[in-house]
Amino acid sequence: MIMKTIVHKYGGTSVADPGRIKAVAKRVANSWRAGERVAVVVSAQSGETDRLIKLAQEMSREPDARDMDLLVATGEQASVALLSLALRGEGLETETFLGFQAGIFTDANHGRARIERIDPTAVRSALDAGRVAIVAGFQGTTGEGRVTTIGRGGSDTSAVALAAALKADRCEIFTDVEGVATADPRLCPDAKLLKCISYEEMMELADTGAKVLHARCVELAAKFKVPLVVRSSFTESPGTLVVPEERVLEGSVVTGISLTTGEAKVAIRKVPDKVGVTAAIFAPIAKAGIDVDLIIQNVSEDGYTDLTFTVPKNDLRRAMTLAEAAAREVKAGRVEAAGDIAKVSIVGLGMRSHAGVAHRMFAALAKEGIAIQMIGTSEIKVSIVVDIRHSERAVRILHSAFYL
Amino acid sequence: MIMKTIVHKYGGTSVADPGRIKAVAKRVANSWRAGERVAVVVSAQSGETDRLIKLAQEMSREPDARDMDLLVATGEQASVALLSLALRGEGLETETFLGFQAGIFTDANHGRARIERIDPTAVRSALDAGRVAIVAGFQGTTGEGRVTTIGRGGSDTSAVALAAALKADRCEIFTDVEGVATADPRLCPDAKLLKCISYEEMMELADTGAKVLHARCVELAAKFKVPLVVRSSFTESPGTLVVPEERVLEGSVVTGISLTTGEAKVAIRKVPDKVGVTAAIFAPIAKAGIDVDLIIQNVSEDGYTDLTFTVPKNDLRRAMTLAEAAAREVKAGRVEAAGDIAKVSIVGLGMRSHAGVAHRMFAALAKEGIAIQMIGTSEIKVSIVVDIRHSERAVRILHSAFYL
Repeated sequence: MIMKTIVHKYGGTSVADPGRIKAVAKRVANSWRAGERVAVVVSAQSGETDRLIKLAQEMSREPDARDMDLLVATGEQASVALLSLALRGEGLETETFLGFQAGIFTDANHGRARIERIDPTAVRSALDAGRVAIVAGFQGTTGEGRVTTIGRGGSDTSAVALAAALKADRCEIFTDVEGVATADPRLCPDAKLLKCISYEEMMELADTGAKVLHARCVELAAKFKVPLVVRSSFTESPGTLVVPEERVLEGSVVTGISLTTGEAKVAIRKVPDKVGVTAAIFAPIAKAGIDVDLIIQNVSEDGYTDLTFTVPKNDLRRAMTLAEAAAREVKAGRVEAAGDIAKVSIVGLGMRSHAGVAHRMFAALAKEGIAIQMIGTSEIKVSIVVDIRHSERAVRILHSAFYL
Repeated sequence: MIMKTIVHKYGGTSVADPGRIKAVAKRVANSWRAGERVAVVVSAQSGETDRLIKLAQEMSREPDARDMDLLVATGEQASVALLSLALRGEGLETETFLGFQAGIFTDANHGRARIERIDPTAVRSALDAGRVAIVAGFQGTTGEGRVTTIGRGGSDTSAVALAAALKADRCEIFTDVEGVATADPRLCPDAKLLKCISYEEMMELADTGAKVLHARCVELAAKFKVPLVVRSSFTESPGTLVVPEERVLEGSVVTGISLTTGEAKVAIRKVPDKVGVTAAIFAPIAKAGIDVDLIIQNVSEDGYTDLTFTVPKNDLRRAMTLAEAAAREVKAGRVEAAGDIAKVSIVGLGMRSHAGVAHRMFAALAKEGIAIQMIGTSEIKVSIVVDIRHSERAVRILHSAFYL
């Protein structure tokens, strides 16, 4: 019998207190007793990373990224030790791995390092010896042995990368929700749990506000074809399987609806409608590393147009400064900003073959009197921007329109 | 000009909160600006290690020592990061070192590892580059890269070992007291700060209850002739210099008085006064790793004697069990224990050349009506055991007898 290799990943809420850590240990032990080789990736206990960041901020208004990495990496280290204690309590043998011990090598971009390669030799040896390998998520090491953290996607990304390096049979992401739902159940009581979703759809949902997985981790899973499972660490529900498109037998037209309130809108009035002007406006913003998402430009009137785009709320102040400078440069009018917007997206592989999805979306919202401020589309996604006051209702309207 | 290399060590109370860490940074910066090459060894913030131990105890009644090391090592790691942030705030360049990064290699006795060797290359390079090296105390690494902690003496021992490896000009131990005093100032308001004390005296004082330094760290300093300074991190007082005996110009008869309440007394009644009986009693206790300190045996009467000895209070229960078994074996009488004792010691190089020190000690106590239960002596020390109720008064009486 060939034993399967499984990577489990437990987030901060799953290891928040001793009782929960013991529950995680039981789950890992069950998997191990069922004959699986288990590597476990853990996050810091929920609240711990914030506590550490607060400590750093008390020391320095702009903490050095290297020191921050050293500091916040203690959170995952503590979780690893506590879970190891709990697993020994279950009678299992464990071996613990910090980033450098697990061979997780990253570049030196502290705070947002990219994983360059994983040498899984040590972790594999532990599994070969029948031990449970417990690996600190979110952290890695530079070639020189400096502690790094990998930023966005955090421990999920660590887990998927480790699963890829180990050629694991699957990577199970244990979290505080049952899996991936058709919409956020807190907004939409009718939301249904998805049994299966493609990497592509999951990436679009993650990118547009679904918090259950980070797009970066899904991208990595897709690249190395690591089957992902998203499931609850508190129940026995099988969760949602995230797999290559060809394994999703019959794609829905719309698989999921997401909502993000993390963006703001910048509008530049009376932009001269000449070649090169738009490029001149966006060049400095792109150079500053600010992600521009949706862009609309209305029809030119008298040789002038209004240009509106969205940026992350965190970057709004910087974007405004840059846009104002650019507006003066190209002799455009005044620059306005609005943070009271939300983006609602519908995502589904089936959109490719079903025309009219966007139209159904607009019609459903129009019928309920919700004005659409901006629209953006991709092959398997339609996003709209609406007033933030209507955003949750918009999710429910669209959920009804496409599912019920 | 040859720049001096200084190792600073700051204990938990010195880095207890952001304000204190900033004060430490200022002190280090002053040293650096005065042209010294500074390596700083830091402990966990006070309370942090206890918090972590408590977490572990919630997971397991007898936590695995490897996991404990991984867990408690996060305390020093956080201190290193926070101090680095503060030093950058002072405009200095820093380089941080965990145990493995500082080349502190230990054996694999987790929780009480011995430092086997230090490879100071990386720390020295940082100093050569004009940076302040910040090193996590209390921790090391096995040859295989597992995190260890070095147990008793903790970060003081790390600092002295690093100073020895760097061939530093001195090692300054910053703490919450002004230095080494003739007695604990909380017990003895007349106690005076010592300007200078020999390694040998300091070891005897540490061994007999003076908490300012651990004997292990002093022993290491003596072995490598590292000049130690014990001083306050809250004042500018120059503190106490701990140096080789030959540098203490004129030793006092009695240099210091110490008190420990950490021991308990075990008495075995009616022990047959025959060859080999004492050895039979102490063999199992020694084998169990229990430190026996003072031993007295009274004059034989009718072929029987009473045997009394002291052990650490923590080991009393185990020692009783072993003593009771041994007593049955050798056909001795009942075994009694008492925890209400204290040991008072006087220490001084001058005792070697001054006869009658012990006698003056006994006379001073007798005059005040304090009964002596046990006596032990070494070349530069006399220890007595008294009822714990009289112990603090005994310290004051002896302080007056020898100093005032």
